[in-house]
Amino acid sequence: MLRTLLLCVLAFSLHAATPEADIRKALDDQTLAWNHGDIPAFMIGYENSPDTTFVGKEVSKGYTAVVERYKKNYASKAQMGTLQSSGLEVRMLGADQAVVIGHFHLDRTKEAGGESAGIFTLTFRKTPGGWKIIVDHTS
Amino acid sequence: MLRTLLLCVLAFSLHAATPEADIRKALDDQTLAWNHGDIPAFMIGYENSPDTTFVGKEVSKGYTAVVERYKKNYASKAQMGTLQSSGLEVRMLGADQAVVIGHFHLDRTKEAGGESAGIFTLTFRKTPGGWKIIVDHTS
Repeated sequence: MLRTLLLCVLAFSLHAATPEADIRKALDDQTLAWNHGDIPAFMIGYENSPDTTFVGKEVSKGYTAVVERYKKNYASKAQMGTLQSSGLEVRMLGADQAVVIGHFHLDRTKEAGGESAGIFTLTFRKTPGGWKIIVDHTS
Repeated sequence: MLRTLLLCVLAFSLHAATPEADIRKALDDQTLAWNHGDIPAFMIGYENSPDTTFVGKEVSKGYTAVVERYKKNYASKAQMGTLQSSGLEVRMLGADQAVVIGHFHLDRTKEAGGESAGIFTLTFRKTPGGWKIIVDHTS
């Protein structure tokens, strides 16, 4: 009886992490990293690939270009401010792709650039290293 | 000999339409429809689904909401202006999904709203009715 119960708990644990939960976790990890002022940890959320693309006012193509853009636009912890996302909607496109739409809010002192808010659409791909953003359009 | 040649030509024709070519064709058709001031024909490019989403300054969710937004913001042929897209990049995510990044330019009289330009990221899905946009983020 106890053994059956333990097996059930184990089976439940193994199946608990749905792709959507994994994607939400990846985004939570990014937010935590951002709010620690840690761009390298934040960048773990993106696929390290020359195809990874950030679309903002301009198109930054390639993981390196995306890192450089963040480092340039958010040169200090004060400029990074406090990030919060809301209204996340995860839509699976297949077993290994998903698109996520959400709102973000950046709380920041006036001296560091002031408050900022907008909407993002993220394309995710399941890689051997987990779910990663391959296209980020933020406006 | 002639028969073999004809079979080769036929086989080539059948395979000529790659998914990327089909997607580019769908976007060309949309541009043509737009430049004819024909929003219903333009909307053929989107999947007719309650999940279809347009992200602009706000999120419009559902095919109907997307049509209404276009009808409201572009109430006349003059307001629709002349649409041109450039720098299209099509990235296949699998056999049935793709993401397309491109620039748009809207040529329009000052009275009708003036020129406008920006970047779009489109998520496409292959449906029984062909390749359709399921998420459009334009900024």
